[in-house]
Amino acid sequence: MNSEVSLMLRSFYFCNMPTISNKAVEMPSSPIRKLVPFADAAKKAGKHVFHLNIGQPDIKTPQLLFDAVQKADIQVLSYIHSQGRLEYRQKLAKYYNGFSASVQAEDFVVTTGGSEALYFGMYTCLDPGDEVIMPEPFYANYNGFSRSGDIAVKTITSSIEDGFALPSISAFEEAIGPKTKAILICNPSNPTGYLYSKEELETLRDIALKHDLFLFADEVYREFIYGDKKHHSVLALDGLDEHAIVIDSISKRYSACGARLGCLVSKNKSVIAAATKFAQARLSPPTWSELAAEAALEVPASYFEEVVAEYSQRRDLLVDRLNAMEGVNCPSPGGAFYCMVHLPIKDSDHFCQWMLESFDHEGSTVMMAPGTGFYHTKGLGKSEVRIAYVLNVDDLNRAMDALEKGLQVYKASESSF
Amino acid sequence: MNSEVSLMLRSFYFCNMPTISNKAVEMPSSPIRKLVPFADAAKKAGKHVFHLNIGQPDIKTPQLLFDAVQKADIQVLSYIHSQGRLEYRQKLAKYYNGFSASVQAEDFVVTTGGSEALYFGMYTCLDPGDEVIMPEPFYANYNGFSRSGDIAVKTITSSIEDGFALPSISAFEEAIGPKTKAILICNPSNPTGYLYSKEELETLRDIALKHDLFLFADEVYREFIYGDKKHHSVLALDGLDEHAIVIDSISKRYSACGARLGCLVSKNKSVIAAATKFAQARLSPPTWSELAAEAALEVPASYFEEVVAEYSQRRDLLVDRLNAMEGVNCPSPGGAFYCMVHLPIKDSDHFCQWMLESFDHEGSTVMMAPGTGFYHTKGLGKSEVRIAYVLNVDDLNRAMDALEKGLQVYKASESSF
Repeated sequence: MNSEVSLMLRSFYFCNMPTISNKAVEMPSSPIRKLVPFADAAKKAGKHVFHLNIGQPDIKTPQLLFDAVQKADIQVLSYIHSQGRLEYRQKLAKYYNGFSASVQAEDFVVTTGGSEALYFGMYTCLDPGDEVIMPEPFYANYNGFSRSGDIAVKTITSSIEDGFALPSISAFEEAIGPKTKAILICNPSNPTGYLYSKEELETLRDIALKHDLFLFADEVYREFIYGDKKHHSVLALDGLDEHAIVIDSISKRYSACGARLGCLVSKNKSVIAAATKFAQARLSPPTWSELAAEAALEVPASYFEEVVAEYSQRRDLLVDRLNAMEGVNCPSPGGAFYCMVHLPIKDSDHFCQWMLESFDHEGSTVMMAPGTGFYHTKGLGKSEVRIAYVLNVDDLNRAMDALEKGLQVYKASESSF
Repeated sequence: MNSEVSLMLRSFYFCNMPTISNKAVEMPSSPIRKLVPFADAAKKAGKHVFHLNIGQPDIKTPQLLFDAVQKADIQVLSYIHSQGRLEYRQKLAKYYNGFSASVQAEDFVVTTGGSEALYFGMYTCLDPGDEVIMPEPFYANYNGFSRSGDIAVKTITSSIEDGFALPSISAFEEAIGPKTKAILICNPSNPTGYLYSKEELETLRDIALKHDLFLFADEVYREFIYGDKKHHSVLALDGLDEHAIVIDSISKRYSACGARLGCLVSKNKSVIAAATKFAQARLSPPTWSELAAEAALEVPASYFEEVVAEYSQRRDLLVDRLNAMEGVNCPSPGGAFYCMVHLPIKDSDHFCQWMLESFDHEGSTVMMAPGTGFYHTKGLGKSEVRIAYVLNVDDLNRAMDALEKGLQVYKASESSF
């Protein structure tokens, strides 16, 4: 093509623009991050913002993880095995068998965070148009991963009045159709902190077996359990070897969100073989992070005792403070470090933005995640917010002061909206 | 459900097994890695295997990258911005503008390797059923990413006789249909080493504008150009701001494959905004790797001069040795560190396996990637192999000795297959 014709073509077509995919248009923005511009503006205006909106723990990452990366004798930072180094998977299996998972090194695909584990797991089990059932409220990014794979989300609603317990079997049975391939739970739950009992998990097991569904369990918070309760992994349930798939990550366990290192675990050989093909397409997990994750398995039990004691103290404070406020209801979380809170408001998106834009208490305000982002059913979550208790007790107390005051001012000024 | 009924259900359904997705079944295995068991067996049998099958460079990773990770003062290894740290994106923009890309920090999404950049880019632009056109042979994992998104791959064939030059415009025009949304090239190319001329890129530009297609260019090898030739980025082409999308990675550039750090670059605001939503769903790129990548931008030009001189020497040796063998044709690569080689064989999968299983020359053999894995059209690539020149000159010479001898023995024994 000579340059004159080429130029002509260019001017002719210059106004055209290729269009992005429907998938991309419909892909949800992160409900946790969408208030960031308002938080930035609040800080610019001199306010202190207490970040209770995101599960970024403030706990120090154990030194062992940094040591592993700093002392590694690497000349060429090369790819590692697509499934993860065998040595790491062997140690992981040992850790898992500590809670009766009965797994071996070949039952793991090491992934770039729990996010990639979820992506590999869902793509391995569900085609476009297939359905996954999730109890809502659920971790908002499950929406993103489903949309990205053109997978339909069906929800059954757990209610704050029941403390977010597992909905009835009949609710599941009503939701299950011919396109349903899987159930996805988060245990203990982000965003509710709900810890499923063994009986509830057995109920889910029976539903999965009866309808031949995969049961995905996101267990990244399994170490954070409060009081006398006990965490049960779906991998330890009898008769579920072909159906159970676990999503895991070191992000929260070792306060190492930036490592991006997780794993997919299943005793179903077809699932792991297929997930490995997805893993091969992206070649390798991040090498430094994998070395850190391997070292993390040597972190002593005393670390978790301290961290759990710390979170437990925060939880107690938070639940007490919240439930003492007028019109507020916060079921006490059994695990993780989140709670879903009912507030005396009608539009949580508006309230959370208002707290950043139009309110401060002694120069401080609170950033929370609007409840609506954690529900799939339109209209739900409008009186709820998710709070992550990732700040120390002093800061939490000051944040609760600001929230309490904020609710009063908001209520008084409500007529003006 | 009482435990008796539950037990009954379990035994009743025990034989059932949920099925994995069609996507997972059809997801291709890595053609580069599928011979690994045969290589392992060869090594177990005491053979030395020259690995020319995979693009894992043997060049030392610059110390600057390790320093950045070792000296970082981190207390909590937290998430970074989903799009990548602003400081890094600003420095990236400066590096890009060194070759006239005219980009700004907001035109980047920092990704977990080039793999994730490709995945974000394709999902942002193509829905299930949409088509992407690639000149074949192409990087095998493009198949995996397309399958994963239920995107159809259409190919136009570039031939070894033409040195893998861009096929004619008419070939493109014939391939373009109503579902075609994008063209994907790799420049310089893995697996052929072909470097597109400015004129060829302008031709692609005109096709993209005429048919309103996205033009994806995987430019991860842009630093590895030999002789007097010059690399041209699609971002530097006039009039293509809304159509050009670049896939990049530090893996090969700084011999840091294990970092898993890359980026997606486009001046199309809708593309970056949508890709950012995919980035938010997976929260953050790996933090340590991003710090290393930022430091890598300080690597002096002399590093590349040395590395390019090294690869150049290897290329010359390899091309000379190969073309001196009977019935062998290897076009001289203009860039990257791969070549596609025509061998006097009829089944490259069989030959590559035979080299590992049944042959050695003075205790050594060569692992290569069968050509078939780089073609989409069935039947193509059967007389071709891909060779990565990621070994030093001495090892390459010995590997060529083994290949030359292997071809002779194979030919002599061919009647027995």
